[in-house]
Amino acid sequence: MAKLWGGRFSQESSSLLEEFNASIFFDKELWREDIAGSKAHAQMLGKIGVLQPNEVELILDGLTKIAQDIEKGEFQFKASDEDIHMAIESALTEHIGDVGKKLHTARSRNDQVALDFRLYVLKHNCFIRSLLLDIMESILDIAKKHTQSIMPGMTHLQHAQPVSFGFHLVAWACNFKRDIERLEDDYKRNNFCPLGSGALAGTPYGNDRVYLADILGFNAPTLNAMDSVSDRDFALDMLYSLSMVMMHLSRVAEELVLWSTQEFAFITLSDAYATGSSIMPQKKNPDVPELLRGKSGRVYGALVGLLSVMKGLPLAYNKDTQEDKEGVFDALKNVSICLKIAKECLDTMSVRTDNMAKMAKKGHLSATDLADFLVRECNVAFRDAHHITGRVVALAESKGVDLSDLDESEILKVDSRIKAGVKSVLDLESSMNARDTLGGTSSIQTNTQINELGVFVSEHRAQIQKRI
Amino acid sequence: MAKLWGGRFSQESSSLLEEFNASIFFDKELWREDIAGSKAHAQMLGKIGVLQPNEVELILDGLTKIAQDIEKGEFQFKASDEDIHMAIESALTEHIGDVGKKLHTARSRNDQVALDFRLYVLKHNCFIRSLLLDIMESILDIAKKHTQSIMPGMTHLQHAQPVSFGFHLVAWACNFKRDIERLEDDYKRNNFCPLGSGALAGTPYGNDRVYLADILGFNAPTLNAMDSVSDRDFALDMLYSLSMVMMHLSRVAEELVLWSTQEFAFITLSDAYATGSSIMPQKKNPDVPELLRGKSGRVYGALVGLLSVMKGLPLAYNKDTQEDKEGVFDALKNVSICLKIAKECLDTMSVRTDNMAKMAKKGHLSATDLADFLVRECNVAFRDAHHITGRVVALAESKGVDLSDLDESEILKVDSRIKAGVKSVLDLESSMNARDTLGGTSSIQTNTQINELGVFVSEHRAQIQKRI
Amino acid sequence: MAKLWGGRFSQESSSLLEEFNASIFFDKELWREDIAGSKAHAQMLGKIGVLQPNEVELILDGLTKIAQDIEKGEFQFKASDEDIHMAIESALTEHIGDVGKKLHTARSRNDQVALDFRLYVLKHNCFIRSLLLDIMESILDIAKKHTQSIMPGMTHLQHAQPVSFGFHLVAWACNFKRDIERLEDDYKRNNFCPLGSGALAGTPYGNDRVYLADILGFNAPTLNAMDSVSDRDFALDMLYSLSMVMMHLSRVAEELVLWSTQEFAFITLSDAYATGSSIMPQKKNPDVPELLRGKSGRVYGALVGLLSVMKGLPLAYNKDTQEDKEGVFDALKNVSICLKIAKECLDTMSVRTDNMAKMAKKGHLSATDLADFLVRECNVAFRDAHHITGRVVALAESKGVDLSDLDESEILKVDSRIKAGVKSVLDLESSMNARDTLGGTSSIQTNTQINELGVFVSEHRAQIQKRI
Amino acid sequence: MAKLWGGRFSQESSSLLEEFNASIFFDKELWREDIAGSKAHAQMLGKIGVLQPNEVELILDGLTKIAQDIEKGEFQFKASDEDIHMAIESALTEHIGDVGKKLHTARSRNDQVALDFRLYVLKHNCFIRSLLLDIMESILDIAKKHTQSIMPGMTHLQHAQPVSFGFHLVAWACNFKRDIERLEDDYKRNNFCPLGSGALAGTPYGNDRVYLADILGFNAPTLNAMDSVSDRDFALDMLYSLSMVMMHLSRVAEELVLWSTQEFAFITLSDAYATGSSIMPQKKNPDVPELLRGKSGRVYGALVGLLSVMKGLPLAYNKDTQEDKEGVFDALKNVSICLKIAKECLDTMSVRTDNMAKMAKKGHLSATDLADFLVRECNVAFRDAHHITGRVVALAESKGVDLSDLDESEILKVDSRIKAGVKSVLDLESSMNARDTLGGTSSIQTNTQINELGVFVSEHRAQIQKRI
Repeated sequence: MAKLWGGRFSQESSSLLEEFNASIFFDKELWREDIAGSKAHAQMLGKIGVLQPNEVELILDGLTKIAQDIEKGEFQFKASDEDIHMAIESALTEHIGDVGKKLHTARSRNDQVALDFRLYVLKHNCFIRSLLLDIMESILDIAKKHTQSIMPGMTHLQHAQPVSFGFHLVAWACNFKRDIERLEDDYKRNNFCPLGSGALAGTPYGNDRVYLADILGFNAPTLNAMDSVSDRDFALDMLYSLSMVMMHLSRVAEELVLWSTQEFAFITLSDAYATGSSIMPQKKNPDVPELLRGKSGRVYGALVGLLSVMKGLPLAYNKDTQEDKEGVFDALKNVSICLKIAKECLDTMSVRTDNMAKMAKKGHLSATDLADFLVRECNVAFRDAHHITGRVVALAESKGVDLSDLDESEILKVDSRIKAGVKSVLDLESSMNARDTLGGTSSIQTNTQINELGVFVSEHRAQIQKRI
Repeated sequence: MAKLWGGRFSQESSSLLEEFNASIFFDKELWREDIAGSKAHAQMLGKIGVLQPNEVELILDGLTKIAQDIEKGEFQFKASDEDIHMAIESALTEHIGDVGKKLHTARSRNDQVALDFRLYVLKHNCFIRSLLLDIMESILDIAKKHTQSIMPGMTHLQHAQPVSFGFHLVAWACNFKRDIERLEDDYKRNNFCPLGSGALAGTPYGNDRVYLADILGFNAPTLNAMDSVSDRDFALDMLYSLSMVMMHLSRVAEELVLWSTQEFAFITLSDAYATGSSIMPQKKNPDVPELLRGKSGRVYGALVGLLSVMKGLPLAYNKDTQEDKEGVFDALKNVSICLKIAKECLDTMSVRTDNMAKMAKKGHLSATDLADFLVRECNVAFRDAHHITGRVVALAESKGVDLSDLDESEILKVDSRIKAGVKSVLDLESSMNARDTLGGTSSIQTNTQINELGVFVSEHRAQIQKRI
Repeated sequence: MAKLWGGRFSQESSSLLEEFNASIFFDKELWREDIAGSKAHAQMLGKIGVLQPNEVELILDGLTKIAQDIEKGEFQFKASDEDIHMAIESALTEHIGDVGKKLHTARSRNDQVALDFRLYVLKHNCFIRSLLLDIMESILDIAKKHTQSIMPGMTHLQHAQPVSFGFHLVAWACNFKRDIERLEDDYKRNNFCPLGSGALAGTPYGNDRVYLADILGFNAPTLNAMDSVSDRDFALDMLYSLSMVMMHLSRVAEELVLWSTQEFAFITLSDAYATGSSIMPQKKNPDVPELLRGKSGRVYGALVGLLSVMKGLPLAYNKDTQEDKEGVFDALKNVSICLKIAKECLDTMSVRTDNMAKMAKKGHLSATDLADFLVRECNVAFRDAHHITGRVVALAESKGVDLSDLDESEILKVDSRIKAGVKSVLDLESSMNARDTLGGTSSIQTNTQINELGVFVSEHRAQIQKRI
Repeated sequence: MAKLWGGRFSQESSSLLEEFNASIFFDKELWREDIAGSKAHAQMLGKIGVLQPNEVELILDGLTKIAQDIEKGEFQFKASDEDIHMAIESALTEHIGDVGKKLHTARSRNDQVALDFRLYVLKHNCFIRSLLLDIMESILDIAKKHTQSIMPGMTHLQHAQPVSFGFHLVAWACNFKRDIERLEDDYKRNNFCPLGSGALAGTPYGNDRVYLADILGFNAPTLNAMDSVSDRDFALDMLYSLSMVMMHLSRVAEELVLWSTQEFAFITLSDAYATGSSIMPQKKNPDVPELLRGKSGRVYGALVGLLSVMKGLPLAYNKDTQEDKEGVFDALKNVSICLKIAKECLDTMSVRTDNMAKMAKKGHLSATDLADFLVRECNVAFRDAHHITGRVVALAESKGVDLSDLDESEILKVDSRIKAGVKSVLDLESSMNARDTLGGTSSIQTNTQINELGVFVSEHRAQIQKRI
């Protein structure tokens, strides 16, 4: 099979080389971007007079036809075509004849693949953001219903202070908000057009790169051709941002798994998002959150993989860089489905506020309130208040009851500095609502937080809509 | 040793626990931030009436005294203090008596460490950016001198097209520019104040978090307390951004190593930045770039480490998170010295333009120019031009000369479509300067790029100055 | 400061280079190995006649003196010495005069560091194995007491089948057994002596490498000098094996954290291995297992770091390799303390078998037994039995009781194929003891497993003792 | 679609769950192992009387039929079958009726997948080792031809001492030898049969696990059922060993890339294993070694991925573990093709000994020989000899010649301690052959090394043959 680059070669490629070297079976994923880039390139070649208007038209029509064939599944991808660029260029020449051979004027596969892949990553950047907005919205919807549902707020997985379930969910939403902002930053920082960089040094044809950047929707052309064909920062940025999404999802997932246990029983996943056992007929397994948690590993792996690939590569393009794509494709595919199913899983779960409330009565959740009472009402320094409270807790423990269930009289006996009225601050609901400064867990503050995030979601969604 | 938190404990800590658990020996690195945070907290407590003005003053003076002791190396750090927060609080109480015990009112170590570490990371974010500006400046200074120095531009480490050495250096500078922008994005995205989040749920004291954020130089308070004590995105963002800096440095380093070989001999490192061999007296080793390259691994490792730590952690604070700091400290320290020494190494190296020029005559660097000539002057389609050129290259190879040294008459014989005048485009300098569109390697374009980057450097430096 | 290698250099090293390049502040950790290696080298040089007997003696005495100085903390390490090899050689020449300058005959820092580091890793290989044996022993001791303590065996963190707590612990021990075996394999595979490889090509002095390997306790000399100075497989093997230890520990730790929650309450950690909160006086936090879990990230990071460092390094020695040590030192130090404290933490925890037993009554743990009864006693195919059991479980759920608490009459009504006598297999203890084949959870099988592992521990300990 | 486990579920699975949860589209890769395991299980059930002989026969025939269908590509894999186990069991029941439903007696998908995957990994362990033997053989074949071909031996990529090309290749072979040994250790350490562990606790059917282990070719049954279904050490061991293979390959690849440059020109890759450029007609790119180097990243990524997945997983089986397979499949596939093509690439490359010899004359490669001469013949201490040599090298540099080209008289003038006859040790061939101790680069030693490795290859191949 004659290679488009084979002019100076005296020997055929080995068959193993074709298999090893070819990227066509994964980079065909880029066909939409390749065709869009070729169309823009042809128009630009027309604009600067390298192609005649009728040649441009012929090429555009040919490319449209190829796009339709691929869409319909009627396009044959062959290893001998090496990559998506060669596959489409060959098909073009088959369709429209010798004019097709002119398309590769004033470009190289090096800037072509840099363009295709960047367009692909930017498009999916918006797509992932819209999925993140979807899941934020679901979380906020649930949170709204639970700004008064008391659960044991935990640190070290030990009961710490009473919080509302809605407040806990807002913390999840904050993670995803940062993910969206990070992706937005990535988008802006990488939204530059590499096409026109040629193999590494630019071209002598006077390519109008500003025009190109414009019609392809970029902010501007890239600054330096050699950098443009060597740079894979945009792909690494995506893998890192996806790793962060998965890290955040894995934390949500961990909690869903915990909360689904017999021991916690804070939530019940819908049957539609759980599975059974092939051997134990009574089992209902939280496969979805487990798999969400597990899939973080795979995305981390893709990030590490590409960081390793790029380490120590001399400029400009090296074949090692071909290893940039599969990890990104796989990570994007997995993160997309993870975000979708996580949302559905949340939308359909039942929240067992009764169990949450019951467990909130264990662990002396209002101990900090007692200490704070000592500070504010009894003029005890915080460190001393902390110690006195420790002794009251010890009393409750010895009696096998929760701090909030001690009689006031018993409490007062522990230390003479404790004033009457202490009992009122030990109630869990009071405790929760007492934390009423910005960011706190009181129902009022939680609602404020939900509203702010709601505004973020709608504003950001409008902004993305413009781009898609 | 009585623990500040030991009220309810009936048994002493094991000595191994103290050693294992204590973070004091590395988190003392945060002492400046811890004191700054405590001062702000005390002022805020004064503002909302929890502390009396004279108490605030006492505390501020005590903290200033402690800062002086630490600065002078006269402060004793002990494992029994567990962490920098406890160490400073204990010392404060020793210095100023019982008022010291009031400082921890309305905060927790959870929001305290979140504050300290975030302040630290944000400060170093600016510092790393200023080092990146320094190295960019050095690179641009060298580039300016070499916009006409021809070297073989490479892809796949094979000679490809003639470029100027200055143009190649601009590609390096572009990498560091993106690093600066990424750090800037990180800064803005994470510049929010967690103090006032308490242990996980806020506090009942009415902390004025807007005032706190303001006097500590943050953009605003964080949105949700539980998120604030769980979130380590700012640390991960830093480790990722540092990994990218090191990846870019490793590519520069690889080229410095290659160019220092007997075989390339494109540069000579200064004796002041090279080392010898304990056994081979003739050796001069490029240890600096080798170590730069090697140190990328360590920073990657720190990123992977923290990503692993955070995976699957339930909210809110967990002790696992204590493992967030050492990796960041180590990475920051190493990246700082790497950037400094890389800059010095570049500043002092000799560029052997003679050898670059000599090597540029190997590998038929102007072959693309011949193909482009066929397209533009002889009306041959690019794909056919590529094949004809392949045959001319084969002729040069068979004669053992570079393409640019063939006689025009010989070239014309290869294919009747080749027109007279072809010889002129094969000259290397013409070839280089022919690539004269945006981003290209012509001297004019390279100078434009250098100027643009120069503007970026000075604008960005001014902006950072305001923050430091 | 005159460098030992500075003969051909015309310029002083920059001060930043000294700081950047020097490994002395971490590789001094290798001083014991460096001195042992130098002693062996001197003896070998004596044996082959390069040194006179009195010179050998002088050198051995000098090295012994230096060892004593270091041991006593009276040895000055200086950055200008670059590394431990130079530091000791310089000190030797100071101590014994010009004979000291002969010690470096027929070796290079390249084979010297390869030796030192390998000796260090092999020594710690044995040490880590002995710590693993210690923790295995603790686990088996606890397991022995709990071969009849029923707990809910879980898959997907959902109650699955009744198992004994001892049986669960045996699973932990199996992980550590494999870790020991892996380390043993590493030891054998890497137990070869690189000394005598010179800089990369061997030496012309006729070094007796078999003698050297012998007196240093190696199996044999390495095969090829260039490989010997380039190879860091032994360090990577160690980092991987340590990563596996930490992965296993993190799983144990996760369970300790879960079991310490209010919700599970299967264990209570000793006060001596838990900590309190600076703000919440009632808290008792499982810091030890949390930190064990967190520290897995750091060790993973060290592995990734060195894998990245070694990627794509040309032969033979490169300075990048200097980055091999700190990660290994840090990982060894952390894994050692983790294994020690994990053991103490297990030794001192209380097991709350009452709570385990209580929870075992939730989740219909004997559902599989019902299905198995249908297969064995009622001649129902397993798949059908699984479905019938599903219906019985649904009945129990609807009545809000555990399967084992249903009346036999109720069960029989669900499906006519169910035979009388079914009730007896639903008892949890019967269920547990019914799993009585090799590897099963019956008390008998669990005891057998404990005994087998006990034999492994004592045999392996005897074997290691010989090496230490 | 009715699930085999659906007895207690009241709601259908969501369609997204099916897609997300199903492993069938990748775990079908395990069909051979699944069928082999099911056949063994059926035979065992026959042996212990759970199945009748005719039932066993029916099942074996059914499974054979299914195997044939899959082999022929006539088997329909459906997402609704979830995984390969369910797919085959369903098909079996379709083929042979209700007897098929008995096959899952006394096992669970948990031990089934543990078996299948382990069998798969062990089989590929042997396969990878045989590919490693192939490439070792190729390397040794080339090495044999080049035990006298002088090249510049390098450290820090700087010319250091003369070595033979064959000697350098032996270093490569040593890496692959260790890889084979590591894989062999993995094999032995993991060659235990998990089948019969049931879901997590064993089974009550009296499974004959020794018989099972025996007919499936394992060394013995695993020790503890809970460990058996939780353990993925065998998969991690494989990923680590593959990472090491790739690390070693990446070092070979780096050298092939360097040696293919115009600057080095030590080798010429065959046209059959190189590619051209779409735009630069003169290019010949070493794509194969570049891609070999790049693919190390992907395998590292798979290792990191699975390490992350396993971190902190509670016992026993969790769905996260489903993420163990794709990384292993992908890594095995890529390492296999990498080893094959690397071998072919080496087999067909041309070695340009002329260029190697020419470059060996640069860099004063015999400087160490001069120092050694001073030690041995002139009684100068090594450190002093090193300095004197440094001065002779400086002289050669100043005259622009290689050390070996200086006149003896010039050398003698540098220092009075230098004796006549020095010139003879400076010849490169003498220098190379002077390094004649075990592991050295002399032709004799290199041949010895080649022979030892040759013996290793044939012995190991014989051993593997027995297993495949």
